[in-house]
Amino acid sequence: MREVFLSVLLRQEVEKNRAERIADIFTANSVDGVYTHGVNKFASFIKLVEKGFVIPNNEPEKVHGFNSLEQWDGKLGAGVLNAVKATDRAMQLATANGMGLVAMANTNHWMRGGYYGWHAAKSNYVFIGWTNTIANMPAWGATESRLGNNPLVIGVPLNGEAIVLDMAASQFSYGALELATMKGTELSVYGGYNKRGELTKLPSEILESRRTLPMGYWKGAGLSLLLDILSAILSNGLSTHEITGRKTEYGLSQVFIAIDLKHLKNYSGIETCINQIIDDYKGSVAEDGREIVYPGERVLKDREKNLINGIPVLKKVWEEIETLL
Amino acid sequence: MREVFLSVLLRQEVEKNRAERIADIFTANSVDGVYTHGVNKFASFIKLVEKGFVIPNNEPEKVHGFNSLEQWDGKLGAGVLNAVKATDRAMQLATANGMGLVAMANTNHWMRGGYYGWHAAKSNYVFIGWTNTIANMPAWGATESRLGNNPLVIGVPLNGEAIVLDMAASQFSYGALELATMKGTELSVYGGYNKRGELTKLPSEILESRRTLPMGYWKGAGLSLLLDILSAILSNGLSTHEITGRKTEYGLSQVFIAIDLKHLKNYSGIETCINQIIDDYKGSVAEDGREIVYPGERVLKDREKNLINGIPVLKKVWEEIETLL
Repeated sequence: MREVFLSVLLRQEVEKNRAERIADIFTANSVDGVYTHGVNKFASFIKLVEKGFVIPNNEPEKVHGFNSLEQWDGKLGAGVLNAVKATDRAMQLATANGMGLVAMANTNHWMRGGYYGWHAAKSNYVFIGWTNTIANMPAWGATESRLGNNPLVIGVPLNGEAIVLDMAASQFSYGALELATMKGTELSVYGGYNKRGELTKLPSEILESRRTLPMGYWKGAGLSLLLDILSAILSNGLSTHEITGRKTEYGLSQVFIAIDLKHLKNYSGIETCINQIIDDYKGSVAEDGREIVYPGERVLKDREKNLINGIPVLKKVWEEIETLL
Repeated sequence: MREVFLSVLLRQEVEKNRAERIADIFTANSVDGVYTHGVNKFASFIKLVEKGFVIPNNEPEKVHGFNSLEQWDGKLGAGVLNAVKATDRAMQLATANGMGLVAMANTNHWMRGGYYGWHAAKSNYVFIGWTNTIANMPAWGATESRLGNNPLVIGVPLNGEAIVLDMAASQFSYGALELATMKGTELSVYGGYNKRGELTKLPSEILESRRTLPMGYWKGAGLSLLLDILSAILSNGLSTHEITGRKTEYGLSQVFIAIDLKHLKNYSGIETCINQIIDDYKGSVAEDGREIVYPGERVLKDREKNLINGIPVLKKVWEEIETLL
C-alpha cells in the first residue's frame, strides 16, 4: 500500500521526502483500522492536489508567537504534514513552557485526527486538538447545514501506547457514513434526517440530505460552534461559514495543544493513576457480557491483525487508486 | 435571596467575606436562570458544610508550578470560591505566558461551571475547564455507573458578554433530571434507562436506576473517561473511581485553562470574526420558525427577566432553605 501511495504522490511531483511521509501516514491510518481516514480518503486527497487546493510541497510558516502560544500559516500544504509539524511544535512549546498551543490557519484536512493524539501521547504529552470543516451539520432545530462536524481529539499516554478519543461533533463522521453506504449496512442508532425530514439509520439517505444529527442533539451542535470559533480566532484563519463559501473544503483552521507531563509534580505516578482508572472502567458490569473498551483500544487489535494479515481494502477503493498510478 | 443565603452561611460560621462571595455566586446562578446549579443546590451545599466535607473557610494553596502550568490543593474549600480563584490564576498565567492552566485537587462541586466561563470571557480570555464527579453514568454498554458526567465548559467573549457552552457528558445533568422530576415533566429525548433496562424519558426512573445515557452514546462515555483522566493526572487529585469509593461526592479534581486573546496578532479583529460566525449560525433555516440560539444566549434573557420580576423558586426548594436559617 505504501509503495502505491508513494508512486502516486511522486507522479504528482511531490518532493520525495514529503511524499514518503504522506504515504507513511495514510498507510499507518489504514494499518490502525481507520480506513475511512486512510486508504479510503487517498484518491480524494490526490484530486485536491490536482486541482491546486492542496499544495504538498509548501511548508507552513510561523506568523506570530507569545511564549506558549503560536499562530502559523499552513500555506495550503498537505494537511497530514502540517498537522505533524504543528503537533511537534506544540510539544516543543510545552517542554519550554509547561504547555503549548499552535493554531494553524490555511491548512488542509488532517485525515485521522487521532494520529496526532497518538504521536504526542506516545512521547508522554497530553494532546488536545481540533479542526473545523466545511458546513456538514445543521444547528439543533435547523434544516440546513451551517456547522462543521469539527472533530475533537484528546490523547493521553498508556503504557508506551495511548488512549485517544477522536470524535466528530456529529453522531457519525462522513467517513463512517460513506463506509456504511459502501458496505450496505444500517447505522446502529439514528445518524440524521432524510430528505423528508424523518430521522433515519440509512447512511445513504443522510449523505443525500446532508442533515447529520449532532451527537447528543443540542450538545454536539453547541460544541461544534465553539470549536469553530476557537479555530478561527486562535489561528486568524477561516471559519466554517467562510470555508463553506468556497464550495470545496480547503484552507481549514486547526488548534494543537500539548502539555508536557514531565513538568508535573506527580510525573512518576501518572502511569499507575491512568492504569487504575482504566482497570476500574473495564471492570464495569456489561450487557450480554460485552467487553467495555476505551477510546483507541480497538486500534491496537486492528494494528496487530492488519500487520499479520495485510490491510483489508474495498475493491472499488483500490481500483480508483490504481487509476492514479 | 442573597440576604437569606448570607444569613445561612454566617450561621454556619463562614467568614463574612467568604460568605458574601458564596452568596453572590449562588444568587448570580439563579438570576441567570440556572436554578439547578443555584438556589436548588444551596441546601445540599449547606449539608456538606455541616458534615465537614466542605470547609468554606479554607483557602486553596499552590503546590507546584512550571511557567504556564500550576497544580493547586483546594483544601476542601467551597467549590465556587476555589473555582473563581483557579480561574483568576489561570488568567494571570495566560497574561504572562499566552495561556495558563491551573489544575486543582481536593476541591468541591463548582455548581454552575458556566459561571467561570462567563467570568473569564467577559475579560477577553478564552476559557476551557472541566471537573470530574462521583460515578453517575455507565460506560457505553455497561449497566452500572463507573463514569462521572464530568461537565466541560468552553467560553469566548461576545460584545462585552460571552458565548458559554456548559455541557455535562450525560444527555441530561442530574440537576436537570431533579428539576424535571420536581416539575413532573418528561424529558424531550431519552435520558437514560429504567430499572428494567429500558430507555426512558421519565426523569424519576433515571434518578432511581442511576443509569443515565451518555450524550451521543459511546461518544459522551469516551469524553467523560478522558476528562476524568486529565483531571486526576493534571491535578494529582482523585479520579472518579476514588471519589466514588468515598460514597459522598467531595474532594474533586478540576482543570482551568485560560488563553489571553490580547497576545494574538489578530486581537483587534476577533470581535468581528465571532459576530460574523454567530450571524451566520443564527441565520440557519429552522423547523417551524424556531429561533436558533447559541450556548448561553438564553442566560441573557433569563437574567433580564429575573432582574425585573424576581427569581422564580419552587416552593419546596425555598421552604427547605428557610429551615436552615
